[in-house]
Amino acid sequence: MDYAVLTIDYLGTLVFAISGALAGLRSRFDVFGVFIMALVTAIGGGTLRDLLLGSTPVNWLLHPTYVYIVIGAVALTYLFRTQVVALRRSRFLFDTIGIALYTVAGLQKALDYDLSPLIAVMLGVVSATFGGVIRDVLSGEPPLIFRREIYASACLAGGVVFLLLSTVVGETVSTMTASLVVFLIRFFAVRNKWSLTIPVRKRG
Amino acid sequence: MDYAVLTIDYLGTLVFAISGALAGLRSRFDVFGVFIMALVTAIGGGTLRDLLLGSTPVNWLLHPTYVYIVIGAVALTYLFRTQVVALRRSRFLFDTIGIALYTVAGLQKALDYDLSPLIAVMLGVVSATFGGVIRDVLSGEPPLIFRREIYASACLAGGVVFLLLSTVVGETVSTMTASLVVFLIRFFAVRNKWSLTIPVRKRG
Amino acid sequence: MDYAVLTIDYLGTLVFAISGALAGLRSRFDVFGVFIMALVTAIGGGTLRDLLLGSTPVNWLLHPTYVYIVIGAVALTYLFRTQVVALRRSRFLFDTIGIALYTVAGLQKALDYDLSPLIAVMLGVVSATFGGVIRDVLSGEPPLIFRREIYASACLAGGVVFLLLSTVVGETVSTMTASLVVFLIRFFAVRNKWSLTIPVRKRG
Repeated sequence: MDYAVLTIDYLGTLVFAISGALAGLRSRFDVFGVFIMALVTAIGGGTLRDLLLGSTPVNWLLHPTYVYIVIGAVALTYLFRTQVVALRRSRFLFDTIGIALYTVAGLQKALDYDLSPLIAVMLGVVSATFGGVIRDVLSGEPPLIFRREIYASACLAGGVVFLLLSTVVGETVSTMTASLVVFLIRFFAVRNKWSLTIPVRKRG
Repeated sequence: MDYAVLTIDYLGTLVFAISGALAGLRSRFDVFGVFIMALVTAIGGGTLRDLLLGSTPVNWLLHPTYVYIVIGAVALTYLFRTQVVALRRSRFLFDTIGIALYTVAGLQKALDYDLSPLIAVMLGVVSATFGGVIRDVLSGEPPLIFRREIYASACLAGGVVFLLLSTVVGETVSTMTASLVVFLIRFFAVRNKWSLTIPVRKRG
Repeated sequence: MDYAVLTIDYLGTLVFAISGALAGLRSRFDVFGVFIMALVTAIGGGTLRDLLLGSTPVNWLLHPTYVYIVIGAVALTYLFRTQVVALRRSRFLFDTIGIALYTVAGLQKALDYDLSPLIAVMLGVVSATFGGVIRDVLSGEPPLIFRREIYASACLAGGVVFLLLSTVVGETVSTMTASLVVFLIRFFAVRNKWSLTIPVRKRG
């Protein structure tokens, strides 16, 4: 990965870890619990992707930098909780950039294993979203991404865009365009309260 | 696998996926959430089995057909929800055939890895049941199979029968007999409200 | 492993399995559910460690003794539930010895894979604690170790002590000292109701 991508990858880890730490604080966990919540939120999706592919030891075991970032995120969350909560808008920005990049990174890794495009897109979405699913399960809450903000659907659209574009233009342009697609879908979805819940006919 | 087995394997995937999709709808998840619920219910058990064995990339990554079946199951569930719910009796039939076959398939894969018979039977049961466990955890409910219908015990009995029979007769006869055992135990268990909850002496 | 370590390893498995079986009984699961609860509590942490490392088939698939111990633990729990509950103090003792040894065993396995010390300590803590996390998630409860008894922090301290000591003295002395550290921290933490919940400033 080049430095620009790596920087945003680390930023994404930081933002996801803060989101997990905040969830841990809301659940009144102790320091260890808050740390584990930050860790699984930041690296859970990528870990599941690596396990499914058989790419072991999984990525973060080989690159302790991710763990240091998570430790830093936990420290920041404790020290500046009020400010972190106030930064909600910036968090939304980083978070959306984060899932866009996680989607593309997961997708590319799956393609390296010669998997079909459909499966590659799915692994991209899994990379971007399952950290949050594990966070919610550990908090005893129904997974947020199954309910709101068409979060996962934005990843899905971004993954498809990347896949199509990358056959005609270079990787950098594809990644940036796909990220922009994810960002725009999510931005307008949140602003206009879009929802993908399909009304179903009731029984009886 | 021959075509008969593959057909029933796909039917099992379809039925498990519908069961997961219905759980997702009950939890008021959006389309993505309903899809993930269908996916983990249909392939969660086999995925866990493959991960424990180290058989990676896990099966469904290599065979997108399973994912297409899950997508089809989600579409069917949305389009024909009323009818799907009314088909409860047929679902019970397919579902029972499904777990019987998943048990035997999981068991055989474990034997291919030269594991002991006890462990092989356990992996068979895991293959058949853990999709439902993950479905229930994501729905925020206590796992159904830990509570009702001696579901898992039927798989266990079928696994043991397969293991014993396969030393004396061919695989096809063993599979069919084991499936029949699972079916009969489950059928009579549900009809007669059998339960394996052992009463325990209260403290004090 | 020498016989002394193996004996305590088996004792740890037994005690963790009993703890899981009791949780299953409290949740009113049937025999199968109680068995699965005992199994995941006893082997869940080590299984996750093996999966993350890529050490597959995971340990307990290759050593059915662990499964026999879990079956024995379930039988003991049903037969002697009153006494088992009364043995709370001995359980605390075994449990603490268990997590200490699981921490060190996990840590050593990670070092065999040439991982960094930070990551090795984390894998040790994961080995010791995640069985309990899965047990709690399946019971529908917030994970106990995220909340109480600075359980995980004791493992963490023990892991660090082991790591530092093992560079200067032999493995046996390091293991015993690290276990003593875990035991003492946990003992005094419970007796004096220590807690690691950091008070956070409220918003607004």
